[in-house]
Amino acid sequence: MAPTLTRIGLAGLAVMGQNLALNIADKGFPISVYNRTTSKVDETVERAKQEGNLPLYGFHDPEAFVNSIQKPRVIIMLVKAGAPVDQTIKTLSAYLEKGDCIIDGGNEWYENTERREKEVAELGLLYLGMGVSGGEEGARRGPSMMPGGSIEAYKYIEDILLKVAAQVPDSGPCVTYIGKGGSGNFVKMIHNGIEYGDMQLIAEAYDVLKSVGKLTNEELQSAFTEWNKGELLSFLIEITADIFGIKDDKGDGYLVDKVLDKTGMKGTGKWTVQQAAELSVAAPTIEASLDARFLSGLKDERVEAAKIFKSGGLSENLTDQQVDKKQLIDDVRKALYAAKICSYAQGMNLIRAKSAEKGWGLELGELARIWKGGCIIRAIFLDRIKQAYDRNPNLANLLVDPEFAKEIIDRQPAWRRVVCLAVNSGISIPGMSASLAYFDTYRRERLPANLVQAQRDYFGAHTYERTDIDGSYHTEWFKLAKQSRI
Amino acid sequence: MAPTLTRIGLAGLAVMGQNLALNIADKGFPISVYNRTTSKVDETVERAKQEGNLPLYGFHDPEAFVNSIQKPRVIIMLVKAGAPVDQTIKTLSAYLEKGDCIIDGGNEWYENTERREKEVAELGLLYLGMGVSGGEEGARRGPSMMPGGSIEAYKYIEDILLKVAAQVPDSGPCVTYIGKGGSGNFVKMIHNGIEYGDMQLIAEAYDVLKSVGKLTNEELQSAFTEWNKGELLSFLIEITADIFGIKDDKGDGYLVDKVLDKTGMKGTGKWTVQQAAELSVAAPTIEASLDARFLSGLKDERVEAAKIFKSGGLSENLTDQQVDKKQLIDDVRKALYAAKICSYAQGMNLIRAKSAEKGWGLELGELARIWKGGCIIRAIFLDRIKQAYDRNPNLANLLVDPEFAKEIIDRQPAWRRVVCLAVNSGISIPGMSASLAYFDTYRRERLPANLVQAQRDYFGAHTYERTDIDGSYHTEWFKLAKQSRI
Repeated sequence: MAPTLTRIGLAGLAVMGQNLALNIADKGFPISVYNRTTSKVDETVERAKQEGNLPLYGFHDPEAFVNSIQKPRVIIMLVKAGAPVDQTIKTLSAYLEKGDCIIDGGNEWYENTERREKEVAELGLLYLGMGVSGGEEGARRGPSMMPGGSIEAYKYIEDILLKVAAQVPDSGPCVTYIGKGGSGNFVKMIHNGIEYGDMQLIAEAYDVLKSVGKLTNEELQSAFTEWNKGELLSFLIEITADIFGIKDDKGDGYLVDKVLDKTGMKGTGKWTVQQAAELSVAAPTIEASLDARFLSGLKDERVEAAKIFKSGGLSENLTDQQVDKKQLIDDVRKALYAAKICSYAQGMNLIRAKSAEKGWGLELGELARIWKGGCIIRAIFLDRIKQAYDRNPNLANLLVDPEFAKEIIDRQPAWRRVVCLAVNSGISIPGMSASLAYFDTYRRERLPANLVQAQRDYFGAHTYERTDIDGSYHTEWFKLAKQSRI
Repeated sequence: MAPTLTRIGLAGLAVMGQNLALNIADKGFPISVYNRTTSKVDETVERAKQEGNLPLYGFHDPEAFVNSIQKPRVIIMLVKAGAPVDQTIKTLSAYLEKGDCIIDGGNEWYENTERREKEVAELGLLYLGMGVSGGEEGARRGPSMMPGGSIEAYKYIEDILLKVAAQVPDSGPCVTYIGKGGSGNFVKMIHNGIEYGDMQLIAEAYDVLKSVGKLTNEELQSAFTEWNKGELLSFLIEITADIFGIKDDKGDGYLVDKVLDKTGMKGTGKWTVQQAAELSVAAPTIEASLDARFLSGLKDERVEAAKIFKSGGLSENLTDQQVDKKQLIDDVRKALYAAKICSYAQGMNLIRAKSAEKGWGLELGELARIWKGGCIIRAIFLDRIKQAYDRNPNLANLLVDPEFAKEIIDRQPAWRRVVCLAVNSGISIPGMSASLAYFDTYRRERLPANLVQAQRDYFGAHTYERTDIDGSYHTEWFKLAKQSRI
C-alpha cells in the first residue's frame, strides 16, 4: 500500500503500460497502478522492486486504486484502443470526482477521443488523448509523447511528462501540448504512417542491395552502420544494422533470413491512408508502404504467382547485373534519403490539412522537435525538418525548402539510377518509385491533367477551366469530334 | 396528363435523370417524371415531344406524380447523393403504398443505401441502390446499370432495365441483379475507381508521347486511333483520340492544350481508396490516380516548385532524348495495356473482398460482362476479364490467369523501358510505375517484408513467424545486438 497519496495512476499493465509506469516512478513520481487481470499488477510491483525499489504501488481493486491518488487525480490508461478504453473509463469514472483527469495513452482513433472528451466532461472530468511512441524501450527510458485535449489537464502533469519524456540535447524533452480535441492522437497516427513509410523505404534499400547488389548480411550490416553515421542517422537505421548482425539461434546463418516475409499491422497506417484521401492530400509513399504490407500477407498467392511467371520464362530477379557494390551502396543511400524527404513532406502536409480543417493550430516545427528523440522515427533528419519550418512556418511543402531542394537536386541522379536498376531487375521498390513520382509531379508546372479534365467534360459535362481565360467552360466534344475523326 | 397509369416514375431531372427518363420512354414504357424545380419538368416534357412524342408525362406536384404510376409503383430517383436523397424519399413516401419501390440511381455511398433500405422497409416499401454509368450519352442511349438491394423490386422492373440498358452483341444487356443491400452502389463505386485508373494511365501515355516523344496532337490522335483498333479498343481511348482532333474555338491551335491541368472529382475515387485500406487490398494504381488528381489541384504550388527546381538547375523535362517515335508509341501501348491489367486486378479484388465480408456472393465475370457496354470503362478488354473468370471463378488475381499472364510477359520489357524512360526524363508516370511495382511484388515469392517484421519485433515485440518452423517467435534483438555490433 502507498504510505501517502500517490501523484498519478496508471491503468493497463501490458508491456507499454508497465514500462511507462516504471519510467514515471523512476523519475521520482509516486505512482499507483491497476490492471483488470491482477497478476499483471503483481508483476509490475515486482519489477519496480527489482529495478531499484521504485515508488510504484499496485492495486487489485479499482476503487482503492483511484482513492490512492492525490486530487485532482490523473490516471493514464494504456489499454487496447476501442471498447476496452470505454470499459476502463466506465470502471474508473465510478470513483473519480469532478476535476479529475483521464489520459488515454493508446493508439486511438482521434474521433473516439473527441467523443470521450465530451462524455466525461458531463461528469466534470478532464480528458487527454496522448500518443506515446518509442516501443517498450522508449516507454521505459523516455518516449516521445503527443498529448492533446484539455490544456488544463496537460498543466496538471506537465512536470511529470517533461521528466518522463526522452531528453534531446539542445532541443529539450520530447513532449509538448499538441492542441485541442483529438489532435494528439491524430499526430501520433501520422507519426505511425511516416514510420510505415520509413520502414518500407529501408526494406526496399535492403532488397536492392541484397537482390541486385548481392550484398551479404555482413556487408549489409556494414553499409547500414556507415549510413547511421551520416544524414540517415536514426533509430530505424540503427536497429536495421543490428538485425543483420544477429545469428539464428535455431539453425545456421542469420536470423533475418529465417523471418517470414509477412508484415503485420495494427491500424494506424490504414487510418493515415484513409485520412489522406479524406483530406485530398497525396500520400503515395505512405500508401505504397501500406500496400506492401497487404501484399506481403498474400504469401501463398505470391508463391503461386512466382511459379506461374517463372514457367512463363520470367524469373523473379530478371537480370544478374554486374554492379559496383560501393557505387550501389552510395546510390541507394541517396535514393533512400531523397525518398524519405518526400514521405515526410506527405505526412507533414496531412497534419497541416487536418489542423486547418479542425482549427487545431498545430505547429509543424514543434512536432518535428518532439520526434527528435524517444519515438520510432527519431532521427537527425527531424532537426532539418524543424529548421525548415523555423525558416518558414508556412512552407507549402518540405520539397521547396531551400535546403531540402538542394539535397534532392544533388541526390536525384542516384535516385533515378536506383529506380531504373530495380525496374530492370524486376525488383519492386514501390515506395522509392512513388516518392520519385511525387517529386516529379510536384515540381511540374504542366501536368497531363488537362487531358483527364477534357475526358470528364466529354463524357460527363463536368466543365473545365482554361489556361488563358478565366471562367468555366463546356464543349460539345462529341459533336465536334464527328467532324474531325480520322 | 397521362391518359392511363404509367409504368414507372422518375424523380430528379438534371441531365442524367432527363436522359434516363427519355431512354425509358423511348423503349416504349410510359413514364411519369417529377422534379422539385418545376421548369426541369417542362423542359423534359418538351424534349420528349421533340425526340419523337415519347410517352413521358410531367408532374409539378409529387402527389399527382405518385398517383399517376401503376401499382406496385416503381420510382427511380436521380438526385444528388446524401441529404437530397433522404429528402426525396421523404417527399415521395408520403404518397407511396405498401409494396411500392424506390430506386436510387445516383452515386451513393453503399452504407446510406443499406440504411435507407431498412428505413423504407418499415413503411412496407422496397428499395434498390442502382449504379448507372455512361454519362449523359449512355443514360439516353443505353447505360450500364448495377442494381442492388431487393430482388423483388428488381423483378418488377427487370423488363424495363433489360431494354433500357446498353446492348452488347453476344453478351446481352448491360444490367444484372448485382446482389443484396448496397452491393449495386459498391460495384459502381469500384467501377469509378477503375475509371480513375484508366484515365490516369491514358494521361501518362499522353504525357510520355508528348513530352518525351514530342508527338504533335495530330500524331497523338493518329496513335490513339490506331490503338483503338486493337487490344485497347475502348470508349476512353476513342474519346481521347477525338479530343486531340478538336481545334480551339477561342483561339489558335488545339483545345486540349488550352484546358487547365486541374482535374476535378466527385468522391467515388476517394471512397474506393478508403475501402481498399479498410479491406486490406492493395490498390496502388487507383491510389496513384487519386493522388494525381490531388496534385493536379495544387497548380499554384507546382508553378512555384517548378521555378525553384529550375533555378537549382533541374529543368522539368530533364533530357531531350532522341527516341524512335514508332518504337515509343508501340512501347507505350504495351505499357498502358499491362498497367491496365494490374489496375483491373486491384478493382476486381476489392469487389471480391467486400463481397466476402458482406456475404453478397458477387460474380466477378458477370460484372465484367455488364461493363462491356454502356459505361465509361466499356472496352473489348472486359470480355477478356469475363473469360478469365469463366475459366476460373476463383481466380486469385487477374495477373495469374494464363492468358493475362502471357500478355504481361510479352509486354513487360516494353513496360520497363517506358517506366525507365519516364524516370530518366523526369516525367512522372505514377500509375504505370505503381502497376509495375504491383506486378513485381505480386509475382515475388520472397519480399523484403521479413526485415520490416524483424524491425517490428525489435522495437515493439510484435513477434514474427519463421520460414522453416511453425509458430510465433519473439527475439530480444537489442540484447543480442549489443554483442554483435560492429
